[in-house]
Amino acid sequence: MKNIAIIGASGYTGAQITALIDADASLSIQGLYVSENSLDKGRLLADLYPTYQHIQIPLSPLSAAAKQTIVEQADAVVLATEHSVSLELAAFFYQQGLAVFDLSGAYRFADVEQYPKWYGFEHTQAAVLADAVYGLAEWNHEQIAQSKMIAVPGCYPTASLTALKPLKPMLTDAYPVINAVSGVTGAGRKAQLHTSFCEVSLTPYGVLGHRHQPEIATQLGQEVIFTPHLGNFKRGILATITVQLAKGTTEADIAAAYQIYDDCPLVSVKHNQFPKVDDVVNTPNCIVGWKYDPQSNYLVVASAIDNLMKGAASQGLQCIKIHFGL
Amino acid sequence: MKNIAIIGASGYTGAQITALIDADASLSIQGLYVSENSLDKGRLLADLYPTYQHIQIPLSPLSAAAKQTIVEQADAVVLATEHSVSLELAAFFYQQGLAVFDLSGAYRFADVEQYPKWYGFEHTQAAVLADAVYGLAEWNHEQIAQSKMIAVPGCYPTASLTALKPLKPMLTDAYPVINAVSGVTGAGRKAQLHTSFCEVSLTPYGVLGHRHQPEIATQLGQEVIFTPHLGNFKRGILATITVQLAKGTTEADIAAAYQIYDDCPLVSVKHNQFPKVDDVVNTPNCIVGWKYDPQSNYLVVASAIDNLMKGAASQGLQCIKIHFGL
Amino acid sequence: MKNIAIIGASGYTGAQITALIDADASLSIQGLYVSENSLDKGRLLADLYPTYQHIQIPLSPLSAAAKQTIVEQADAVVLATEHSVSLELAAFFYQQGLAVFDLSGAYRFADVEQYPKWYGFEHTQAAVLADAVYGLAEWNHEQIAQSKMIAVPGCYPTASLTALKPLKPMLTDAYPVINAVSGVTGAGRKAQLHTSFCEVSLTPYGVLGHRHQPEIATQLGQEVIFTPHLGNFKRGILATITVQLAKGTTEADIAAAYQIYDDCPLVSVKHNQFPKVDDVVNTPNCIVGWKYDPQSNYLVVASAIDNLMKGAASQGLQCIKIHFGL
Amino acid sequence: MKNIAIIGASGYTGAQITALIDADASLSIQGLYVSENSLDKGRLLADLYPTYQHIQIPLSPLSAAAKQTIVEQADAVVLATEHSVSLELAAFFYQQGLAVFDLSGAYRFADVEQYPKWYGFEHTQAAVLADAVYGLAEWNHEQIAQSKMIAVPGCYPTASLTALKPLKPMLTDAYPVINAVSGVTGAGRKAQLHTSFCEVSLTPYGVLGHRHQPEIATQLGQEVIFTPHLGNFKRGILATITVQLAKGTTEADIAAAYQIYDDCPLVSVKHNQFPKVDDVVNTPNCIVGWKYDPQSNYLVVASAIDNLMKGAASQGLQCIKIHFGL
Repeated sequence: MKNIAIIGASGYTGAQITALIDADASLSIQGLYVSENSLDKGRLLADLYPTYQHIQIPLSPLSAAAKQTIVEQADAVVLATEHSVSLELAAFFYQQGLAVFDLSGAYRFADVEQYPKWYGFEHTQAAVLADAVYGLAEWNHEQIAQSKMIAVPGCYPTASLTALKPLKPMLTDAYPVINAVSGVTGAGRKAQLHTSFCEVSLTPYGVLGHRHQPEIATQLGQEVIFTPHLGNFKRGILATITVQLAKGTTEADIAAAYQIYDDCPLVSVKHNQFPKVDDVVNTPNCIVGWKYDPQSNYLVVASAIDNLMKGAASQGLQCIKIHFGL
Repeated sequence: MKNIAIIGASGYTGAQITALIDADASLSIQGLYVSENSLDKGRLLADLYPTYQHIQIPLSPLSAAAKQTIVEQADAVVLATEHSVSLELAAFFYQQGLAVFDLSGAYRFADVEQYPKWYGFEHTQAAVLADAVYGLAEWNHEQIAQSKMIAVPGCYPTASLTALKPLKPMLTDAYPVINAVSGVTGAGRKAQLHTSFCEVSLTPYGVLGHRHQPEIATQLGQEVIFTPHLGNFKRGILATITVQLAKGTTEADIAAAYQIYDDCPLVSVKHNQFPKVDDVVNTPNCIVGWKYDPQSNYLVVASAIDNLMKGAASQGLQCIKIHFGL
Repeated sequence: MKNIAIIGASGYTGAQITALIDADASLSIQGLYVSENSLDKGRLLADLYPTYQHIQIPLSPLSAAAKQTIVEQADAVVLATEHSVSLELAAFFYQQGLAVFDLSGAYRFADVEQYPKWYGFEHTQAAVLADAVYGLAEWNHEQIAQSKMIAVPGCYPTASLTALKPLKPMLTDAYPVINAVSGVTGAGRKAQLHTSFCEVSLTPYGVLGHRHQPEIATQLGQEVIFTPHLGNFKRGILATITVQLAKGTTEADIAAAYQIYDDCPLVSVKHNQFPKVDDVVNTPNCIVGWKYDPQSNYLVVASAIDNLMKGAASQGLQCIKIHFGL
Repeated sequence: MKNIAIIGASGYTGAQITALIDADASLSIQGLYVSENSLDKGRLLADLYPTYQHIQIPLSPLSAAAKQTIVEQADAVVLATEHSVSLELAAFFYQQGLAVFDLSGAYRFADVEQYPKWYGFEHTQAAVLADAVYGLAEWNHEQIAQSKMIAVPGCYPTASLTALKPLKPMLTDAYPVINAVSGVTGAGRKAQLHTSFCEVSLTPYGVLGHRHQPEIATQLGQEVIFTPHLGNFKRGILATITVQLAKGTTEADIAAAYQIYDDCPLVSVKHNQFPKVDDVVNTPNCIVGWKYDPQSNYLVVASAIDNLMKGAASQGLQCIKIHFGL
């Protein structure tokens, strides 16, 4: 039984991973935490999220004393906090010997130079960053098992990389074109005009400049064009990817490449059949569908995940279970 | 050609009535105004609302000078402002001789004692209030024609009163029970957590204490139970009303009562057939459907309007056209 | 370990209870069945419902042989079938000694005379009907434990009765007014114009004549006015109930009455706080919120459930577990 | 005043163009027609579509006599009919001397060989087809004015071509990648499982094989990859297009190319600003937003229209007004 502290538990991602950990017989919750000046301080998770009626745990302020208690009691911390907050918290807990599962972007790039550009801060924890591994669960099992500093991938990268990584040997220098649509929970729980009910309607954003583009490119080892969209649904991501593969690539080649997921219960790959977003909502699954035109060598592959689950919380849980061998 | 100034044009209601006035050949727009400290000051309406591409009119700050210009140039002002802001602006323009069409609640109660309780302010304009008429367009034609101070009804009262007023002679002391569901635009354009996309889901609010309850009761001359709900749609209101009528009331009595709308092109009444919200969205119409059980004397009547149209802007336009005889 | 056959597993309710039984360690699935002429015959549940990727069980045609096998292997059958189909199947399996959990309406009325009027058929199984109990899980525990013929309640009655039954002693002859809004899954999985995506918009239906009205009235022992609505969401029901209680009733009386649920983990009751539909979607919970005006004795109480869960499948599961003492 | 017969008026597109023609002072409605075996025969348009309360015109069966009356009375016919139905009706009315505005795909390809492959029928009207022009209103003004046989473009091609045609001189042999999401009205008014409310959720369809791909490619003069998606909204299309332009192309080149729309009131082009679907819903507008990376020469351009308006009915109206010089 591993004991987990969840920091940032009041947000959509934090609440989701709390529910998953609560339901897992091999894990226990050390405590739920929010920042010391959070308005949600002291409230029960069940009051913020009536859907979790059964989780009557208070959201404690993350005071210095609370941090000390976590270090004493917990085996691991989950950080569902802002990037800049995770930066320091991850280092603190890691250096105290806890396993850290960071759902933010603060440790996803190995290269410190990327942070000022994409996250707006200097990365001050080079030593910790050097130990960080990228928690793409189906691909980095070994590393996740061995490192105590796991940067859980972003939602768009998870959907995109799951579809693209098996195809790496067939890529040319033509850029894969990734069009992805995310549910509104991806923007977090804060009230903002552009995510208010009356304003939401399908639209692109972050065009030719979203921070998940270099995350995907780095992990794939290939430049991509990535265009995210806000969709009028609460949860889920659909990434539709178009890519011209190397001449001579056959359907059989692609099918063979995707066999890498044959032993992955959470990833389903279908030929000539495409997922819809609701197929994966509230599940830890990724469903991939593809179709190929051998004349033109164009492949269209669509990948669907729940952004709060496989795109954050349930992949975080996968990492926890891999790391602790549960 | 009457020249109209629209104050509070950046909100959902203000923008909607701007579009209606812009499209009406007998009216012109003197100007669009927002408060002096509005962030939208100086922007074009078309930039705030790309759906109104054709309305390239700037949102001017309502400075003292602007108010003077309005007095000189405009025949009427439309107030799509907060209740407390309308309170003063309406009095100012009314006293300068302009016709005032106030879409807020600041002049809807004749009784000044209601305002502290329901709106949180003392009504400081008793003289103006004494001249105000309630702009329920199908019912108060004469008064709207004669007064220059028109308080355009709220959205819930419009839907409810249109259904209930014809039945007045058949009511007993049993309270009509009004259950109404409004689209989220009813909450205005400000970013708030409870109207953010991920939070909206059908729920009651203002139970046994909403300010539209006394507005309905006053205008109907009968107490009612009124329970508003927030629905997961952008526009529209459906009010479903259950009421036990006086013993002996027949279907024919009810049908006869509703004939009062036979000459009202914007109100349709249907027997044993019920409207859906989308039947009226983006229209100035009210559709009423009813069914009656002569055994128990229970009537169920549903009334649908677009909250921003018949519930605000298009009823405002009706009042303008009635007032000026257009 | 009890072995359960699920008949009608291709529908929304059938698929949902299959998922619940599949996830329950004390139950196993004997088989999934559809009618012999179903187009879904032979397909995997996971293919019909990709959200249930992990349930790779075929939908077998319910042939005579299959029925025999069920009798030999299963401890119980779940019927997620049309009312008229359940009528016969329930009797068959019950007479063979299996426990029957019928999610249809075929055994919900004790009085055979109700069936022609509300379901359009003569009830041909009076003997079986005499043994049937009404599976409102929080109320009829004893009966559910003892009878092998359990009629699981409808979705609207579950929401309504959970809110109203504790108040029975305070009711007068004033009819409670129940306004309820259901998600579209309540209409089943068949393609129909009125439930096609572009047509759905909040509207009443079955006004003063829905078959759930007498079901509620019978179980409550009091006439009610029940007006169901179709809402533009997939899952969930919100029932908003207005009722004038006996003179002298206090808030404390109501609070005391609702304490009956203090030991019921799936029912939460809140004072002056109201549920939204999404609070219960995908959960087995019922959340009840109420507010009372002691002057007028009017109570407004809202009750939210997931129509496919507490309104069908998860209440079915509750009945199974109560019956078998699991 | 031109007199227009509308055939297929009961569908979403037919009803929409009826409303537009009804509202246009320079046009009158000769009659509304449905097929002789339609269940909607004899009903009023206002009964099918309560949103059009003011259009109390019956849907007449298109009998031989009705066709004769149309020939005698109408200046033009609008065909909002199935492709195979339009094929014959267009030829009949065209040969009788009426102007024909066909909203189906039956006359969109000049090349008869395309029809069996993409529409499943042989094109039997080669002579009429030879006279047909493609009614992309902003581009083919002259031809639309001169021919009496106008094939109004499909919704996806209108969105895509409006964005791409100005860029033609900068295209290379790299295929533009078009990802488009359409509202569900695009699938028509018939009840089908995949467009039922509970089933709709963002998903690709027609991957590497949709009939609008060759329509776009033919009109653009360049192969494209076109991936349509069904979105969970009623109206609107967003096409997000990614294309690598010729080396050396500058932002200024692109801006200059889009100046072709400076005099087109219905097309707005924005740099570094992107439309959302609701910006154009219920309008005849197309809003285009683009961003360019001069390093990689990749352009992302998004184009939004209302599929029933600019994608069908309002573009049909544009064609009518251009043709008749109104």
